[in-house]
Amino acid sequence: EKKTGSEIVYGHRGMTLEEDLNVTNRYYIETDRAVIYKKPTPIQIVHVDYPKRSAAKITEAYFRKASTTDYNGIYRGKYIDFEAKETTHENYIPLKNFHAHQVEHMKRIKRHGGIGFIIVKFSQSSDTYLLESDFLASFWDASLSGGRKSIPKRFFHEHGHLIPQSYLPRIDYLRIVNQVFF
Amino acid sequence: EKKTGSEIVYGHRGMTLEEDLNVTNRYYIETDRAVIYKKPTPIQIVHVDYPKRSAAKITEAYFRKASTTDYNGIYRGKYIDFEAKETTHENYIPLKNFHAHQVEHMKRIKRHGGIGFIIVKFSQSSDTYLLESDFLASFWDASLSGGRKSIPKRFFHEHGHLIPQSYLPRIDYLRIVNQVFF
Ligand SMILES: [Mg+2]
Ligand SMILES: [Mg+2]
Repeated sequence: EKKTGSEIVYGHRGMTLEEDLNVTNRYYIETDRAVIYKKPTPIQIVHVDYPKRSAAKITEAYFRKASTTDYNGIYRGKYIDFEAKETTHENYIPLKNFHAHQVEHMKRIKRHGGIGFIIVKFSQSSDTYLLESDFLASFWDASLSGGRKSIPKRFFHEHGHLIPQSYLPRIDYLRIVNQVFF
Repeated sequence: EKKTGSEIVYGHRGMTLEEDLNVTNRYYIETDRAVIYKKPTPIQIVHVDYPKRSAAKITEAYFRKASTTDYNGIYRGKYIDFEAKETTHENYIPLKNFHAHQVEHMKRIKRHGGIGFIIVKFSQSSDTYLLESDFLASFWDASLSGGRKSIPKRFFHEHGHLIPQSYLPRIDYLRIVNQVFF
């Protein structure tokens, strides 16, 4: 196995889903296909120093839980909203990867005429699926009344959509959005 | 002048535009009229401590300049995107309150079929206007070729829309959005 070859072929296997999506979204913006961004991580700022002649420095802050999804924007005139998650489990993703607020948010988006989905990457295989947010909401609601606490990969295979991966765009989820929502 | 009366009538004069918009957006969500949020402030995190048995603590971080606008979401099935600014100048707002990236972003949103605008509050009078992003873009582009470096309040009066203010919703900008964009 030659190292160079390996780097070329499998080079982006080591990228996280978030990195791949950032590169993909930047590509969509540069080619004027869509305007979709990841929202900044919400931070609770407790203390800031304002040194003379240099930039304000945050010296105490904490991560907060997001109340919405991570990604939103516009595509073909429609509002787009999604959450992206990676799991190391081979055959399922635990529902605890999502929060109640996020599921509630996705229900609202649907009600107001937006396009909502999740993107889930199974790291072991690199298989990455798009699944409409309605399905997440169904699993979520069922889990609250005793149903299973995860979504099986089999379900993604049957009701979701495998996202094609290539060099650019890396995770071409808009190709799936075209098929599913338009 | 009685203090209590003053507090009741002018009580919310002391609120910043951002606080007023947050309360307004929360009201829109609770009454299921729209789903619009302010994006978190983008922060560049340099150092995080992970103490045992307590929350991760960010000990060095800096504010970053936003590359998009501050607010987006969905209303009546349409993508909504805006930036909000307050100025202490009585008769104009300097263009340096906005960034090139933001103006570029607003042009993209327009091109993709979204609704884009700015909300500007003149603090001295509390007058708060909605102005379509096209006008900001025109002023911006003109300023790059020697034009004026600010937008006069007179222009907001003539081409923008004064936003009605009340107790709840505080800054009812969706009423203007209904008139202007639908
Ligand atoms: Mg997240
Ligand atoms: Mg801003």
